[in-house]
Amino acid sequence: MGDNKNFVKDITNIEEDFARWYTDVVLKAELADYTDVKGFISIRPYGYAIWENIQKYADEKFKKCGVKNVSMPVLIPESLLNKEKDHVEGFAPEVAWVTEGGENKLEERLCVRPTSETLFCNMYSKWLSSWRDLPFLYNQWCNVLRWEKETRPFLRSREFLWQEGHTIHETAEEAKKFTLKMLDIYTDILENFLALPVVRGQKTETEKFAGAESTYTVETLMHDGRALQGGTTHYFGQNFSKPFEVKFQNREGKEEYAYQTSWGISTRLIGAIIMAHGDNRGLKLPPKVAPIQVVVVPVAQQKEGVIEKATEIKENLENRFRTEIDIRDNYTPGYKFNFWEMKGVPVRLEIGPRDIENNQCVLVRRDTLEKEVVSLDNVNNRIAELLEDIQANMFKMAEENVIKRTTVAKNMDEFEKNLSENQGYVKAMWCGSSECEEKIHEKTGAKSRCIPFKQEHIADTCVYCGKPANKMVIWGRQY
Amino acid sequence: MGDNKNFVKDITNIEEDFARWYTDVVLKAELADYTDVKGFISIRPYGYAIWENIQKYADEKFKKCGVKNVSMPVLIPESLLNKEKDHVEGFAPEVAWVTEGGENKLEERLCVRPTSETLFCNMYSKWLSSWRDLPFLYNQWCNVLRWEKETRPFLRSREFLWQEGHTIHETAEEAKKFTLKMLDIYTDILENFLALPVVRGQKTETEKFAGAESTYTVETLMHDGRALQGGTTHYFGQNFSKPFEVKFQNREGKEEYAYQTSWGISTRLIGAIIMAHGDNRGLKLPPKVAPIQVVVVPVAQQKEGVIEKATEIKENLENRFRTEIDIRDNYTPGYKFNFWEMKGVPVRLEIGPRDIENNQCVLVRRDTLEKEVVSLDNVNNRIAELLEDIQANMFKMAEENVIKRTTVAKNMDEFEKNLSENQGYVKAMWCGSSECEEKIHEKTGAKSRCIPFKQEHIADTCVYCGKPANKMVIWGRQY
Repeated sequence: MGDNKNFVKDITNIEEDFARWYTDVVLKAELADYTDVKGFISIRPYGYAIWENIQKYADEKFKKCGVKNVSMPVLIPESLLNKEKDHVEGFAPEVAWVTEGGENKLEERLCVRPTSETLFCNMYSKWLSSWRDLPFLYNQWCNVLRWEKETRPFLRSREFLWQEGHTIHETAEEAKKFTLKMLDIYTDILENFLALPVVRGQKTETEKFAGAESTYTVETLMHDGRALQGGTTHYFGQNFSKPFEVKFQNREGKEEYAYQTSWGISTRLIGAIIMAHGDNRGLKLPPKVAPIQVVVVPVAQQKEGVIEKATEIKENLENRFRTEIDIRDNYTPGYKFNFWEMKGVPVRLEIGPRDIENNQCVLVRRDTLEKEVVSLDNVNNRIAELLEDIQANMFKMAEENVIKRTTVAKNMDEFEKNLSENQGYVKAMWCGSSECEEKIHEKTGAKSRCIPFKQEHIADTCVYCGKPANKMVIWGRQY
Repeated sequence: MGDNKNFVKDITNIEEDFARWYTDVVLKAELADYTDVKGFISIRPYGYAIWENIQKYADEKFKKCGVKNVSMPVLIPESLLNKEKDHVEGFAPEVAWVTEGGENKLEERLCVRPTSETLFCNMYSKWLSSWRDLPFLYNQWCNVLRWEKETRPFLRSREFLWQEGHTIHETAEEAKKFTLKMLDIYTDILENFLALPVVRGQKTETEKFAGAESTYTVETLMHDGRALQGGTTHYFGQNFSKPFEVKFQNREGKEEYAYQTSWGISTRLIGAIIMAHGDNRGLKLPPKVAPIQVVVVPVAQQKEGVIEKATEIKENLENRFRTEIDIRDNYTPGYKFNFWEMKGVPVRLEIGPRDIENNQCVLVRRDTLEKEVVSLDNVNNRIAELLEDIQANMFKMAEENVIKRTTVAKNMDEFEKNLSENQGYVKAMWCGSSECEEKIHEKTGAKSRCIPFKQEHIADTCVYCGKPANKMVIWGRQY
């Protein structure tokens, strides 16, 4: 009857070594695997299905805002990448270069896109002529490459999948508004779909995107108290439209440069789901994004009629929920329970001969591991309730982690003490100088996560230099 | 009121210069545009929406067969590409190489994937252990690069988008069956969704995929009589599984190499849609794949109530059809009629003040340009009928082109005469020798399209060498 493998024992304890726990979950839940090229992963069906669910949800939201999908080339000529000074400085050190094609050395190096502002601007300059053409609200779902030194599956891969939206507008106001509108959509995706509570705010000068005028972010907190940037939106003003000559005839008949935004979320979000929700049994998936919402596991399946009944239930459930059945005959029910818990399936339905006699089954929820006996007449509705409840409860549990790990610091002693005790977010006042920011980072390892939209007055002076400060910043160590 | 531009005059005559007509349509219908890197195109929203519709339709069909999506790396180490002899010979001359990453020269060149058999096999060798694991039915939607010398948007781009399915199976029979099952799906996509009649058959040794044991194809015919390969499926036997050590313990407890398939369709299909259906007015889209199925164009829209009524109709229609409204105030109705015909929208709905008075509108179908007056009470149902009818009629028109351009040749004189008179498909017997195939190509420019599943007995001897022949082959010049 196969081995009664205990997956819980196989996974490193989450409190002992979070990094190893993470890798164990990625590999054992079959979300992704390493390949022969450092920093490049293969996303396996279970991991990719999570991404497809995110894509579907996000893409519908984008389209409701009038965004249209396009496809830009994967390669950028070096001369094009070089057109915007800050941008090339930010990205050139970490790109991969194609130097040979079709057995010939290329005249100009082509970089594999790390992001596509330059490509979009180049095409926009061809397509734009009048204010009547605006806005262009374009997006692409694609792969990008960034030659990171340290790599970890999903979190920091040399290749990752993402969407990059690039828009141009008639006025600065409209572009700024759109930048924040997309941040609202990211907030919705993270909070309502992935059950990840976010802090919304603006990045500091140091942390903003290379070439942007301002960058906005939705920051999330992981189980271990480290922060993870969930998604960012950027307002460029005319920083790119000028060097790329993205201009139009405005309503007054004059030539004007367009106002631009970009915004992206990536497969990093899968890393965030793992690290914010997971536990010692493995993955824990919010029902809305879970590729499998309910798994039916028959007990004593060799007994007459059990598989038939379990299959009947599964077929009934799959009209409403993403449902699987596990009738492998070389594993015990105990093995299967562990297996599907490790895979993070929100609800398990167990059914054996005695349950069938009593017209009932057992439902086990993954978030709390609570069991309940439910009549088969009511199982459909009860599962619907449970899934909603699990989604809400997972958000609540993640939020409690944020609350527990968020502290306030009025001076650097408090800052360091809080961080070493809690990790997590430290709220502290900041004078606005990049030097203070850098010093805080050197001293504590924490970076400014953002200047939250919801400001609080914690003190009158900068936590580092003691000079007058009117900005409250959230700090934290990061992934 | 803007210029009354006549798009028909802007597009090269289809009978005079088909190649230029094609480029005109691609650019003017805003399907795609050239970029600064030769052979790399930018697919614009209207073109990409066609691809999204194909993706959605195909992906659902794949998933019903149990296929799951994954993501493999975009880069392949040279050593991995070199593992299967025929494969590397076929692809190495046309790949692009990444040689530098993160400001360092790489120790090993990495090629940008031209196709991913090698990557899938490499991962399958890690993931496979028992016959119980099989089959693996995986697919990815991604971009690939082939460094073509001659390039044309969609038809032969250095980068294109596609899906590549890669499966491994327990037995040769199962793998072969799956290869043909996917060919059935491609047939369905082309015929029922894109209104492209196909010839189904097997590729000759010369024309099969590099590394395959056998390749199957769905061949289509363009307006000018040239053939285009619509999709191919490959059976590999153990050609890759042996060098890549993709092996499993079989039911007898012995080690065995897996049996493999791969199959793909690409953005070339957009080229096929353009070239099979288009006419002198531009693009002509089959309703099922059209991003816009109905366009509402108000006439005399400055008159009171016209835009309101047109908008009301549009909002009603869009519950059932992909609908747009064109209320641009700087273009005349005549301009708009031409514009949307050029864009290939299947049905145009015209409505002006007199129509409103009479509770009616005018419907114009793009395939035949026939007009009819329809009561507003019945417009919804009438459009549904029209769209079905247009889909069917476009298939019929394309089929008539195939019938008209398909000829039979018993000797090379007939072969050459037919081809120069009709282009199109020439049916002729073939002895099976690659030499004859090559000579026919040299002499006529035609290649073997396939050995159709539906065989006909045309003669007893090979059209080229006169030796006994029992295979009927379809020949044609190709895109």
